[in-house]
Amino acid sequence: MAGNTFGQIFTVTTFGESHGAALGCVIDGCPPGMNLSEFDIQQDLDRRKPGTSRHVTQRREEDTVEILSGIFEGKTTGTPIGLLIRNTDQRSKDYGAIAQSFRPGHADYTYWHKYGIRDFRGGGRSSARETAARVAAGAIAKKWLREHYQTEIVAYITQIGEKKIPFENESFINNNPFFAANQSQIEELEQYMDSIRKACDSIGAKLHVTARNVPVGLGEPVFDRLDADIAHAMMSINAVKGVEIGAGFESICQKGSEHGDELTPEGFLSNNAGGILGGISSGQDIHINLAIKPTSSIATPRHSIDIHGQPVILATHGRHDPCVGLRAAPIAEAMLALVLIDHALRHRAQNADIQVNTPNIAHHNQ
Amino acid sequence: MAGNTFGQIFTVTTFGESHGAALGCVIDGCPPGMNLSEFDIQQDLDRRKPGTSRHVTQRREEDTVEILSGIFEGKTTGTPIGLLIRNTDQRSKDYGAIAQSFRPGHADYTYWHKYGIRDFRGGGRSSARETAARVAAGAIAKKWLREHYQTEIVAYITQIGEKKIPFENESFINNNPFFAANQSQIEELEQYMDSIRKACDSIGAKLHVTARNVPVGLGEPVFDRLDADIAHAMMSINAVKGVEIGAGFESICQKGSEHGDELTPEGFLSNNAGGILGGISSGQDIHINLAIKPTSSIATPRHSIDIHGQPVILATHGRHDPCVGLRAAPIAEAMLALVLIDHALRHRAQNADIQVNTPNIAHHNQ
Amino acid sequence: MAGNTFGQIFTVTTFGESHGAALGCVIDGCPPGMNLSEFDIQQDLDRRKPGTSRHVTQRREEDTVEILSGIFEGKTTGTPIGLLIRNTDQRSKDYGAIAQSFRPGHADYTYWHKYGIRDFRGGGRSSARETAARVAAGAIAKKWLREHYQTEIVAYITQIGEKKIPFENESFINNNPFFAANQSQIEELEQYMDSIRKACDSIGAKLHVTARNVPVGLGEPVFDRLDADIAHAMMSINAVKGVEIGAGFESICQKGSEHGDELTPEGFLSNNAGGILGGISSGQDIHINLAIKPTSSIATPRHSIDIHGQPVILATHGRHDPCVGLRAAPIAEAMLALVLIDHALRHRAQNADIQVNTPNIAHHNQ
Amino acid sequence: MAGNTFGQIFTVTTFGESHGAALGCVIDGCPPGMNLSEFDIQQDLDRRKPGTSRHVTQRREEDTVEILSGIFEGKTTGTPIGLLIRNTDQRSKDYGAIAQSFRPGHADYTYWHKYGIRDFRGGGRSSARETAARVAAGAIAKKWLREHYQTEIVAYITQIGEKKIPFENESFINNNPFFAANQSQIEELEQYMDSIRKACDSIGAKLHVTARNVPVGLGEPVFDRLDADIAHAMMSINAVKGVEIGAGFESICQKGSEHGDELTPEGFLSNNAGGILGGISSGQDIHINLAIKPTSSIATPRHSIDIHGQPVILATHGRHDPCVGLRAAPIAEAMLALVLIDHALRHRAQNADIQVNTPNIAHHNQ
Repeated sequence: MAGNTFGQIFTVTTFGESHGAALGCVIDGCPPGMNLSEFDIQQDLDRRKPGTSRHVTQRREEDTVEILSGIFEGKTTGTPIGLLIRNTDQRSKDYGAIAQSFRPGHADYTYWHKYGIRDFRGGGRSSARETAARVAAGAIAKKWLREHYQTEIVAYITQIGEKKIPFENESFINNNPFFAANQSQIEELEQYMDSIRKACDSIGAKLHVTARNVPVGLGEPVFDRLDADIAHAMMSINAVKGVEIGAGFESICQKGSEHGDELTPEGFLSNNAGGILGGISSGQDIHINLAIKPTSSIATPRHSIDIHGQPVILATHGRHDPCVGLRAAPIAEAMLALVLIDHALRHRAQNADIQVNTPNIAHHNQ
Repeated sequence: MAGNTFGQIFTVTTFGESHGAALGCVIDGCPPGMNLSEFDIQQDLDRRKPGTSRHVTQRREEDTVEILSGIFEGKTTGTPIGLLIRNTDQRSKDYGAIAQSFRPGHADYTYWHKYGIRDFRGGGRSSARETAARVAAGAIAKKWLREHYQTEIVAYITQIGEKKIPFENESFINNNPFFAANQSQIEELEQYMDSIRKACDSIGAKLHVTARNVPVGLGEPVFDRLDADIAHAMMSINAVKGVEIGAGFESICQKGSEHGDELTPEGFLSNNAGGILGGISSGQDIHINLAIKPTSSIATPRHSIDIHGQPVILATHGRHDPCVGLRAAPIAEAMLALVLIDHALRHRAQNADIQVNTPNIAHHNQ
Repeated sequence: MAGNTFGQIFTVTTFGESHGAALGCVIDGCPPGMNLSEFDIQQDLDRRKPGTSRHVTQRREEDTVEILSGIFEGKTTGTPIGLLIRNTDQRSKDYGAIAQSFRPGHADYTYWHKYGIRDFRGGGRSSARETAARVAAGAIAKKWLREHYQTEIVAYITQIGEKKIPFENESFINNNPFFAANQSQIEELEQYMDSIRKACDSIGAKLHVTARNVPVGLGEPVFDRLDADIAHAMMSINAVKGVEIGAGFESICQKGSEHGDELTPEGFLSNNAGGILGGISSGQDIHINLAIKPTSSIATPRHSIDIHGQPVILATHGRHDPCVGLRAAPIAEAMLALVLIDHALRHRAQNADIQVNTPNIAHHNQ
Repeated sequence: MAGNTFGQIFTVTTFGESHGAALGCVIDGCPPGMNLSEFDIQQDLDRRKPGTSRHVTQRREEDTVEILSGIFEGKTTGTPIGLLIRNTDQRSKDYGAIAQSFRPGHADYTYWHKYGIRDFRGGGRSSARETAARVAAGAIAKKWLREHYQTEIVAYITQIGEKKIPFENESFINNNPFFAANQSQIEELEQYMDSIRKACDSIGAKLHVTARNVPVGLGEPVFDRLDADIAHAMMSINAVKGVEIGAGFESICQKGSEHGDELTPEGFLSNNAGGILGGISSGQDIHINLAIKPTSSIATPRHSIDIHGQPVILATHGRHDPCVGLRAAPIAEAMLALVLIDHALRHRAQNADIQVNTPNIAHHNQ
């Protein structure tokens, strides 16, 4: 595989460039018989789309999705679902200046060396715009997981630069431009982001992703552990530089008597594992943290070279997110949903006959 | 795939349980014509094997590898390489007590729910003993990478519990029981580990993994980015709870003007990217950090339940590593080698014809 | 994988139903830097499209292809190529009558049992209309093979029912409605096909597929032998019931002294192998024969059952090919091209460094 | 994948050369909880093993299988099953003469060009000896299919050279050296085979493979149709040159009114489809025919070249089957079992929830 397909049973193959004709994907392996319409998908696309506040790129894309196949009389048929999102607000002239040079922090240099050619318009394939197709596919996965297991997947920003954002309530997440589970500090964050933007700079962020009501038993040791596939999925999101599961990097300083989650008939007494033991879901909530680097496209002039190896000074203009992490929440949710549905289907392939009498205790200390 | 195969072109399929007859693997896709003998593999196995100091498990396994196929007159033939490592020091009686119960922090509970059956002897398939097969396969990958690109892969422990271990020199790594690139603090670490062990407890660790002389162009966006596959590989190692690449979680507080590595004709001016841009290797050194949780098997009594859901108190005896991170260095090196060789081969599948005149600048600020 | 992706390095994922909004595919892994436009693809689509003579279905589809991604300034970029073909002449009312019944010889019964739902309009996903997407992808593969190896792939009908069609000249193939390499018997065939159609019946056919200038060394023993992947590809074409390579079923009566192709410095003395030895291309021409069953949709009333298991009498009206084999030539060419390009890329992944001094003798007795 | 793995959920990865240390395989994805011992596997290995009559190779191999992993207390655990078969009767000196030359009809020439190196002892990896590992894996698949669906898979020779072998009764198959479902003509066949052998020649054969009690719904259109995967599996067997399903090449002369199998509440009225409609099993018996070429290793001198391209005369001595088809029956059964179990598991991954009220009529005219 050349790398644009995710999953083994529920597979998603995406295509499209930032300033090409369209983005889209083909979803293969979706179980048949599920109600599905464009509306179900559009909701998540609207959460991710650009231009919704002054803190994100001002590019105007409606990101309207068209279902091309795989649905009959409102239901999935089990055959491939083709999804299409036309690009409408390309401004490729913004990119003429960088056609011959490599923007620091961007994929320009590596695409050029790898392929000998690159679509420099808005980053081409390396643009985060590609993730619209992932969000569309993820919406289908989320719907199936919700209907089968009542699984809920939620992501929210917990830190922007040095600013830690206390968790207040999940209901706030979609009511502020930061995907923050917070209400009290939004104004402060707005001012902070304004200052970053005015300084022609950008800033990193930390994202928390969680899933509730995950069935016990998902994950395929040894290489395709659930946590390994989650790490794969998350690190495949543009700008992600770190992934933690459960206690994550705090595990380094933990003792075994502290880290190992004790079990009782009433449930686990803690969740340092982050819902995954030995690579298999335990039924506890899954907890993931992501480190997201600052946007590489900034208007501050920087040193670089051109395709001939000569030094240049580059400032990236055009329309960019000053904190690329801000729009990562729906993408991370989508990727986690894609991992979970794939493992749910893989699990029943091998283990559909399994019945154990041991109670599922995973309902405390989530 | 049920999850025991890694890679797409250079594939490794492992088998074996901690206390079964044998461990091993099949390596498919190894390029033909490379000199290879058991000796080449044994060296890395010896670095990983148990019983080498009082700080690791006292199980005595020689971990002697036999090449079953794929070599003819001392050279790889391009056909599958079968490797076999017999288990010799199983003491399954140590495990009778936990046959009906789930050890906290272990895979017992999840394997039971997933498969309806589990080999409880030493963790069966979920034991880190399985990684011997990975190390054997990784030794072959490392050799090929070294011969083709002079790629060097090195891992060392940088922290045990609260004890940070300053980098002094790579030459020290194999001269102490901690895989530490350090000489001055080894005695202190020995005392620290002794105290942990005497307290019937265990401790977490942090591991740094690096690769030098990585060719530019490896990685397959968008899902099979090099960093995504590295995250997958690393998180598939037992006990790993976090993965960072380059600046990792420090990226959260970085500004774009600080994070984005500037380019000059003489090289990159920094390496926050950790050697990977847009999911493709830049030729700079790859830098990875891993968080490794404390060993779950400790002699301190802990709460748990049995397979009927009844409460029990469990203390895990037998022979265990008090810091599972200590033996992770050769495993992490092996996994990184498996990722790199697979991407090197995938890259030339699609891009063998590519020639660019742009100089490769990745030789400063590694 | 749910089955709609073909290939491992050069992968094609198709989507779309006979009477849905559109057909299309995503091609991943195409080497970068190749000139490509819609025109290159349209030529093969025009050869396959319906309504071109009275001997094929009268459905009118222009089968106009749109490239959605993967091309920049007229060249492939190495990123996924999305292709879209809108359906324009759906007449779903033709199918109302069979919505509740299963047409003999069709996939209706099996899709219903497998998925619990089926798009009955024109066979939905099981329609040969899906092969338009394969032909589009195959056109890209053919172009690459031609430019790299001068590989030429040609298919032609050698038998319709009892009528054997002597090979006269390849130049005739695209000048008659039968894809026959024949000029002298076309009128006779036209009369024969008219009689079949007037009898409300259909007829089988035999197709020969050949490839010239195939490089030596393609194929991955043991399971992914070149012949095994060709058999897979060919049997995946609607209505194909048999595949032969080289001497095929004639091998049964051959002696070893007759079958085994002798080698001389001037070339092989025969080609019973059909260009493949031990699953690897020898450089000789590849020769394949396909058996294609008669179209199942006929206007003659036949026994069947409905979804409640009750007996019904069905005659299939609508617009159908009386000999589905007639339009299979471009499809078989496309599938062979997809196999060959995938193996060409796989081969160089593992074996790009291989050099042997032994001359390539595969140029006689093709 | 480099080609030595078969299947997607129930995967088999084989290794080993004809005259290497051992053959074997790793089976991943086997459902847990099935009783399994070496005895279950040995039975099929004994049917395939060499030296059982004067009509097959006189090499003496016990083909004793050892289970290395994946079984605990007599049951499969769902983790990888490692199988090992040591080679014991290698006579590599037989092959010194052909080390520098290419045997006509063999893989020598193509392996050499592909890999630049080849294990010439007994054909190395290209030898049919590799199929012992497939038979071992197939025995596990057959057992699971039998226990879950009462599926029975049977293969028998229907023709050797010009000698057609009438079907008399399946009970005869394992009672003669030809895997013939026949008793009355065995003596005649023995004489025929003796004459072939004495003439230092070999002969082709035709094999019929059938499966009964196949559940309806297996197969993944469009590329991974059940018939396509069967064709892949069968053509991957050494020496197979043709594959037919159902009416096969007879379909060419059939009319639609004759070929399409009518349905009634009491069952299908015929089985031209061979049990597969639209790439999905219908529940009818699966019928497959294979064309198997004559053994290429014959003692008659033949023209060839050496690795320098110089002409040589070669006669292949050593121990060979005069009709390689004779031992193909257990191999073909194994491959069909591997296809069916893989599709059974894939099917329930996507469609485990499907329930239709339509009766399954596939029980007449099998």
